[in-house]
Amino acid sequence: MKIAAVFIAFLFQTTLKAQTMNTKENQNATSIFPKGEKLSNEWFTGNAFLKPLVAKDKNNDFALGSVTFEPGARTIWHTHPKGQVLIVTEGEGFYQEKGKPAQALKRGDVVNIPENTKHWHGAAPNSTFVHIAITNYKGSGNVLWLKPVTDEEYNGAVKK
Amino acid sequence: MKIAAVFIAFLFQTTLKAQTMNTKENQNATSIFPKGEKLSNEWFTGNAFLKPLVAKDKNNDFALGSVTFEPGARTIWHTHPKGQVLIVTEGEGFYQEKGKPAQALKRGDVVNIPENTKHWHGAAPNSTFVHIAITNYKGSGNVLWLKPVTDEEYNGAVKK
Repeated sequence: MKIAAVFIAFLFQTTLKAQTMNTKENQNATSIFPKGEKLSNEWFTGNAFLKPLVAKDKNNDFALGSVTFEPGARTIWHTHPKGQVLIVTEGEGFYQEKGKPAQALKRGDVVNIPENTKHWHGAAPNSTFVHIAITNYKGSGNVLWLKPVTDEEYNGAVKK
Repeated sequence: MKIAAVFIAFLFQTTLKAQTMNTKENQNATSIFPKGEKLSNEWFTGNAFLKPLVAKDKNNDFALGSVTFEPGARTIWHTHPKGQVLIVTEGEGFYQEKGKPAQALKRGDVVNIPENTKHWHGAAPNSTFVHIAITNYKGSGNVLWLKPVTDEEYNGAVKK
């Protein structure tokens, strides 16, 4: 009986190990794109990264890229002259327009950000957050950077 | 001993069941968006589905959606008057411009399709294939549908 129990326990442990490895592989597999290069702390608070995908060209009047925010990282307040579309591909984060409650975002959510609307987006305090951004151009510009989202603003927005 | 063995076997089975459920959940978790509605076989061969994400509006001069192709499913030959960007989010498939070899596509690949260029895209024979499509408008149109990709054309393209 001891031998049988030990053998079955061994199988059981092996199963658990295999399960853990699968989970890890699946977690890595959730990132569609490489993280890319770190974005300047002039415009992003904490560690955020950009992987450019398509630059504005004769057909596409937008810049396309994937942005990865480490937990707690976020943009500063900003506006887009012709709006921006966010497509959340991984993790949990927030989008907030000035004077409104923050919206919680998760994988599969899409935000159609209006033009000239002061807002920020970024990760939840305890989650990496990745979104694709389609940023429309108006002439040669597609963003106007404003002031940082303070810790007080961020903490107040995400705790509600 | 019998009781102990049965109990351990029960635990083991429970573990396997849980594992199977996890695997299933993880597979589902690889799909960012719901499949959406089946696309017409007038324009798609086999089973393809569209989940619309953002319609053309005053800021976005494109339609945004997620397209899911079952194995072997594909578009018919077509052109876009102002191009289209594909972002592969799941599985394996192909993109082929008329007269050129097909390009194999996998998760994370991006295709910037030029204007007025005859092409098709779709799944590999043994893989589901999911891409986001950003389809630019020229006036009120964004696609011109042509003739089906025959089985001979498809098989010849994907086996190389």
